Amino acid sequence: MAATASVGTEVSVVGKEDGEAAAEEQQVVNPWEVSAGKGGIDYDKLVDQFGCQRLDDALVARIARLTARPPHRFLRRGIFFAHRDLNEILDLYERGERFYLYTGRGPSSEALHLGHLIPFMFTKYLQDAFKVPLVIQLTDDEKFLWKNLTVEETKRLARENAKDIIACGFDVERTFIFSDFNYVGGAFYENMVKVARCVTYNKVVGIFGFTPEDHIGKISFPPVQAVPSFPSSFPHLFSGNDQLRCLIPCAIDQDPYFRMTRDVAPRIGYQKPSLIESRFFPALQGENTKMSASDPNSAIYVTDSAKEIKTKVNKYAFSGGQDSIELHRKLGANLDVDVPIKYLNFFLEDDNELEHIKKEYKEGRMLTGEVKQRLVAVLSELVARHQRARAQVTEEMVDAFMAVRPLPNMFG
Amino acid sequence: MAATASVGTEVSVVGKEDGEAAAEEQQVVNPWEVSAGKGGIDYDKLVDQFGCQRLDDALVARIARLTARPPHRFLRRGIFFAHRDLNEILDLYERGERFYLYTGRGPSSEALHLGHLIPFMFTKYLQDAFKVPLVIQLTDDEKFLWKNLTVEETKRLARENAKDIIACGFDVERTFIFSDFNYVGGAFYENMVKVARCVTYNKVVGIFGFTPEDHIGKISFPPVQAVPSFPSSFPHLFSGNDQLRCLIPCAIDQDPYFRMTRDVAPRIGYQKPSLIESRFFPALQGENTKMSASDPNSAIYVTDSAKEIKTKVNKYAFSGGQDSIELHRKLGANLDVDVPIKYLNFFLEDDNELEHIKKEYKEGRMLTGEVKQRLVAVLSELVARHQRARAQVTEEMVDAFMAVRPLPNMFG
Repeated sequence: MAATASVGTEVSVVGKEDGEAAAEEQQVVNPWEVSAGKGGIDYDKLVDQFGCQRLDDALVARIARLTARPPHRFLRRGIFFAHRDLNEILDLYERGERFYLYTGRGPSSEALHLGHLIPFMFTKYLQDAFKVPLVIQLTDDEKFLWKNLTVEETKRLARENAKDIIACGFDVERTFIFSDFNYVGGAFYENMVKVARCVTYNKVVGIFGFTPEDHIGKISFPPVQAVPSFPSSFPHLFSGNDQLRCLIPCAIDQDPYFRMTRDVAPRIGYQKPSLIESRFFPALQGENTKMSASDPNSAIYVTDSAKEIKTKVNKYAFSGGQDSIELHRKLGANLDVDVPIKYLNFFLEDDNELEHIKKEYKEGRMLTGEVKQRLVAVLSELVARHQRARAQVTEEMVDAFMAVRPLPNMFG
Repeated sequence: MAATASVGTEVSVVGKEDGEAAAEEQQVVNPWEVSAGKGGIDYDKLVDQFGCQRLDDALVARIARLTARPPHRFLRRGIFFAHRDLNEILDLYERGERFYLYTGRGPSSEALHLGHLIPFMFTKYLQDAFKVPLVIQLTDDEKFLWKNLTVEETKRLARENAKDIIACGFDVERTFIFSDFNYVGGAFYENMVKVARCVTYNKVVGIFGFTPEDHIGKISFPPVQAVPSFPSSFPHLFSGNDQLRCLIPCAIDQDPYFRMTRDVAPRIGYQKPSLIESRFFPALQGENTKMSASDPNSAIYVTDSAKEIKTKVNKYAFSGGQDSIELHRKLGANLDVDVPIKYLNFFLEDDNELEHIKKEYKEGRMLTGEVKQRLVAVLSELVARHQRARAQVTEEMVDAFMAVRPLPNMFG
């Protein structure tokens, strides 16, 4: 199981053991490690442990009502499942006020996999539904600090990844994409220093698990991911609007950064950012395995061909079906561990069809091969659409999204 | 005794006790604390402890020969007394190659005192003698991190201090003055991150004495002071000249920053900076007391009037003379603890006159009042000259020195 792409980082999940039961004494979730206990991540426990709030049906219904459109399937299906002060964002929106969105990515790989797309697909929906500006941080500095890459390589990856992000359909009149190596400075750097003054070494050790042998680049980084939460970090966008609220869609492993940010915000005269947080996206091999760049068969990449998708799904997607057709017809599939069903849950738009497949499969009337066939069709279409959109993204479009300029249609 | 102004910081000296003897088990020298053992700072011990080199007469003679001008009195009198790889700088200069100078100041106070001027007076001499470009860092970020000041206040102080620095006579065609809050970003930030990746938390604890309760702003700062040592941090000045050597004139308390920098430099493909390092400038009350912003009578400020200078010197400058004229005529003065003599050593240009005064005073023929009278004249002239020069510094001149632009006459 691996994280969705997330604000500033990528997550490796180290599953302890497949299984159904409890006993998650080993569960570790931070921006660099997601280590499940037996039976996978216990999201309920995580919400309590982190002190965030559950995103319940009433809140989803309220979003639908306020935006006058059906809630995104990631909301309908509890994929974005937790939040911090989302209700306050909805309150102000209801009063006719506005906010801005902030998400990001750590550009450490050439091609994105499907998990990386989750927060961007969802953020695109939020931008369209609320008609608000969006800042997207590409933490090339972070990837330089954590990975064995050159500055030039992380900057190149940031730009390549920006193309995939733009291909998700963001509105250039409302979206500012920036790389830290290019943008850190001025008001942004002032805010970094202000945040840094409020956080002790002991505190970042408690939040992020750094050790004394870690380099000071790691210890210096959390303020960099914190400050896009503050509108004053973007004077070309939000000048004179320093109390504008910020909503951050991200995977739950990024919560530590924003716990720290929310702790600091009032001490430096700023609003706390609100959060809307997702579960992790599983690897093909199952919830407790790891999507790994070194194993291309652990994930579907947005660069995969239809043939590769078909092969990967058929060959590697962990099945909850039974070993023989006879047994399957009799016992049905175990949906809790079945990866094709999990993937369809993320990407098949039609709720009725999804319920139908789950029911038929669970009761043994549908076979793994049939479910996988449907999944191959869904993913192939999604990936082909992404590839077509990305092919349209020119260098000039990247320059346009990344230009430090006022956004012409911010709240239009 | 307090430090001269120095790259990036100001130093408070906490003397343990006046006296002549050894036993410096308590000696602590780092950028934020200079704590002398009995008998004042043991500079010999410091050189051995830090691992830097003594600046001997042969090296001073070589500087004089290469620059075809008499060595500065700070060199003649051993005030700049230590170095790192200065001989390499002189070797390349002798071969017709060039280098650049880097010094700085932490802008925490409105008005500079005489100690703050030392490195700038000396750097001005080096710039004139070697005809090389100079970068001056104003670490407003550092002062925000260490002092209870706002960002706006540190930025204002940086600009005010820049006026005093400009008044020292630097050549605008060869000098770039920058504030960190204004300049950090781009190539400079890339180098900060590169340095940070090479230095562990344990390492900065060892070098700077940070504790786990210190905020991460402090832990993040050393790379900021390190990277002006690398020409690639200034692409508008040194583009394509990434191996240009750097010479740093500073007080010896700044050595820890550059030990760290020299350790990292080869690991990231850069040249080690060379250093030329000064002793500390004493407070009026003597070598083992502290020049303190909260006690205006502990130092002569560049804003003091002739009358204030006269009062301060006559009333507060610690004298090595005897209690009565009779005793003084008989025993003479103790020059080792006499502040007027120490100040004349820094500021009286004429070697013969200085030797004459020291001899006459030591042997009791000259009285403290007479020495102080000469010092008042020297300081009044120096300060009046500075005030006249500073009055000529316009906002436009500050803008010119701080503009990010190529230097038109860098090696002219």
